[in-house]
Amino acid sequence: MAQKGKLSTEAYKGVRDFYPEDEAVQKYLFATMRGAVEKFGYAEYHASILEPAELYRGKTSEEIVSEQTYTFVDRGEREVTLRPEMTPTIARMVAAKRRELSFPLRWYSIPNVFRYERPQRGRLREHWQLNVDLFGSASPSADAEIIAVAHAVMKAFGASESDFEIRIGSRAFLNALAEKAGLSSEKREQLLRLLDRRAKISAEEFEKGLAALGVPPEAFSAPAAPDDVRSLVAALQDLGIGNARFDAGIVRGFEYYTGTVFEVYDTRPENNRSLFGGGRYDNLLQLFGEEPVPAAGFGMGDVTMRDFLSVRGRIPPYAPPTKAYLAVTSAELVPEAMRLAAELRAHGVNAAVDLGDRKLGDQIKNADRQRIPYLIVVGEDELRSGEFAVRTLATRAEATLSRTELGSFFLNLP
Amino acid sequence: MAQKGKLSTEAYKGVRDFYPEDEAVQKYLFATMRGAVEKFGYAEYHASILEPAELYRGKTSEEIVSEQTYTFVDRGEREVTLRPEMTPTIARMVAAKRRELSFPLRWYSIPNVFRYERPQRGRLREHWQLNVDLFGSASPSADAEIIAVAHAVMKAFGASESDFEIRIGSRAFLNALAEKAGLSSEKREQLLRLLDRRAKISAEEFEKGLAALGVPPEAFSAPAAPDDVRSLVAALQDLGIGNARFDAGIVRGFEYYTGTVFEVYDTRPENNRSLFGGGRYDNLLQLFGEEPVPAAGFGMGDVTMRDFLSVRGRIPPYAPPTKAYLAVTSAELVPEAMRLAAELRAHGVNAAVDLGDRKLGDQIKNADRQRIPYLIVVGEDELRSGEFAVRTLATRAEATLSRTELGSFFLNLP
Repeated sequence: MAQKGKLSTEAYKGVRDFYPEDEAVQKYLFATMRGAVEKFGYAEYHASILEPAELYRGKTSEEIVSEQTYTFVDRGEREVTLRPEMTPTIARMVAAKRRELSFPLRWYSIPNVFRYERPQRGRLREHWQLNVDLFGSASPSADAEIIAVAHAVMKAFGASESDFEIRIGSRAFLNALAEKAGLSSEKREQLLRLLDRRAKISAEEFEKGLAALGVPPEAFSAPAAPDDVRSLVAALQDLGIGNARFDAGIVRGFEYYTGTVFEVYDTRPENNRSLFGGGRYDNLLQLFGEEPVPAAGFGMGDVTMRDFLSVRGRIPPYAPPTKAYLAVTSAELVPEAMRLAAELRAHGVNAAVDLGDRKLGDQIKNADRQRIPYLIVVGEDELRSGEFAVRTLATRAEATLSRTELGSFFLNLP
Repeated sequence: MAQKGKLSTEAYKGVRDFYPEDEAVQKYLFATMRGAVEKFGYAEYHASILEPAELYRGKTSEEIVSEQTYTFVDRGEREVTLRPEMTPTIARMVAAKRRELSFPLRWYSIPNVFRYERPQRGRLREHWQLNVDLFGSASPSADAEIIAVAHAVMKAFGASESDFEIRIGSRAFLNALAEKAGLSSEKREQLLRLLDRRAKISAEEFEKGLAALGVPPEAFSAPAAPDDVRSLVAALQDLGIGNARFDAGIVRGFEYYTGTVFEVYDTRPENNRSLFGGGRYDNLLQLFGEEPVPAAGFGMGDVTMRDFLSVRGRIPPYAPPTKAYLAVTSAELVPEAMRLAAELRAHGVNAAVDLGDRKLGDQIKNADRQRIPYLIVVGEDELRSGEFAVRTLATRAEATLSRTELGSFFLNLP
């Protein structure tokens, strides 16, 4: 092996290694998301992280593609981007099979997405994101369902309605306002950007910005909810969802939204920020030369949800998939231990066998450090008598069982 | 939305889109792999696809890194590679936490990996690969276990021993042979490469290659199994594995193997090729300046396994996660249908509601095309009487049930 100096053990900047305890949290997050979303009839799809760069050029400025995404040229002179979000991909996939697919279509995915961020604390370059999309319905019921799914995912994570708030904005409302103020399309864009920055700037700055655009600040001090949002809030109440309200300031950063948009906010005063959001985007398929297909969806990131659960102590403790660890009193007994493990596995028990490279005490420590709950020592005595002590490592309680009783012992565990 | 010409709906060259029916096959493959591997006490880990390029430079030639991987320079002047295989990553992760981890350590992952291939039919640039690794045991029992896990995964896919064969080679055997023939380390590399190409070249070419190196061809005509392979085959027989044998020609392409190596071959005469393989690699942690940690493992690709199952008709038919589709006789009844769906979901039933954008006939067609098995029509009559017909779409059989009976109908399905 040609060794050329010592290699660093560090991961690439801004991405994470998932050791089994970290991966278990990801698996918990994803399984909870899947369970909640499939209840509403959504089916999982997936795609490669590699996309032609032009997919993002269609709807995003050149600047964003080249400065905020990972884009490179392959050896076939193709420009490739590591997807920064999933919506263009699902729009591409729906457009590609437009004639074979039937609607309404409910799809979800939990892809990893990439953003080129300046290296700084806590800013990740890769994260995972639940994406839930409903294609082919222009009905306000589709907007209501998408929000209901988001609400159901939060509930599946053990959140109560007091833990979060659903704030709904409306592109139609903003368009009407812009028209009333006689804004050019350029100034309309500036208004969107100003609203998007609202949470990050002072009230004075915000009002100054509005004044510069010629928009009266009254338009944003407790305005009445527009019709689309009012009926959406009512539809949600009808579904038993009580924590949704109009917020004129919710605009979402993406250009492609066309109707109502929403963001789910953490209600903790010390962390009153947006957790995730979505909205209606009816025109995205036009980019592919297809007739528009009405669509609504949302995206929920793993990092934000992990933080949300973590501060509330709601991340389940680590439990490895392995239930039993078979330690051996000597290396010669490993084949015997493997035979016993095979019997346990036939009963559905996940069982690991120590391979006898270390002393018994170290074998037991190993099981303990890997949080495997049950230990069985395999020695000459045990094999002769056919009686094995099963030790619960957390409590040190022991039960002595015959070889044939072992399988059912694990079956009957809570 | 700034539309700049029509976008292509094609995926990037050499990668796949996974529509729900395709993704269901991936999920089946991965769930089967997970189930089999966790039985042996392996815990899942994961990492980013982005790795520092130097991780591959340490053990691979400059040429391979730059010509066969996706490697690019980020804006911080860092060279980044999309991982072409998982072993360097797990070695990095184990080296990084060497002092906190305890051994033996059993880890697995199902990452996607990338190879830059010239665009041609059937050559994919991204595939998924089960990686199973056992760190911290130099015992031959570890080699036996790794092969037993590979065997168990094959069995979990419904394969019998006649469907595949495990061919075991030995680096120690080759090293002894090279020493006997007095080969320089350069010629030893050439011998490895020649053996690795053996299946792709003619017998004459192979013998000519051996002659050029001064290795007697008899060394490869039915040589006796070396000690390490002989006892490994015996250990496997002890575990009930009867389809493993010595094959002097099995070398594996990777430089990092140090002991026994194996490949699993498809036994179908028309497809007698290697499906996947692995082996022992004891020195990889030295690249990170760590003491060596003995290790053994294997990697199994999704594409090869999908083909293996597909030609045998063993890929399960698609079944969406959604059980019930609620069609509506008019759009006004959608809120009622949503209420009924919520009741079904409370019983654990995955239920989708049509949003009334289309005629009833098209709603039913939609459920059918998405292969949702049960249909419930929600109309004025049904809501008034509280009696709903549940139609099995495949057989057109119908059962009429009261609202309260619906939940248990789905619970009692086979």
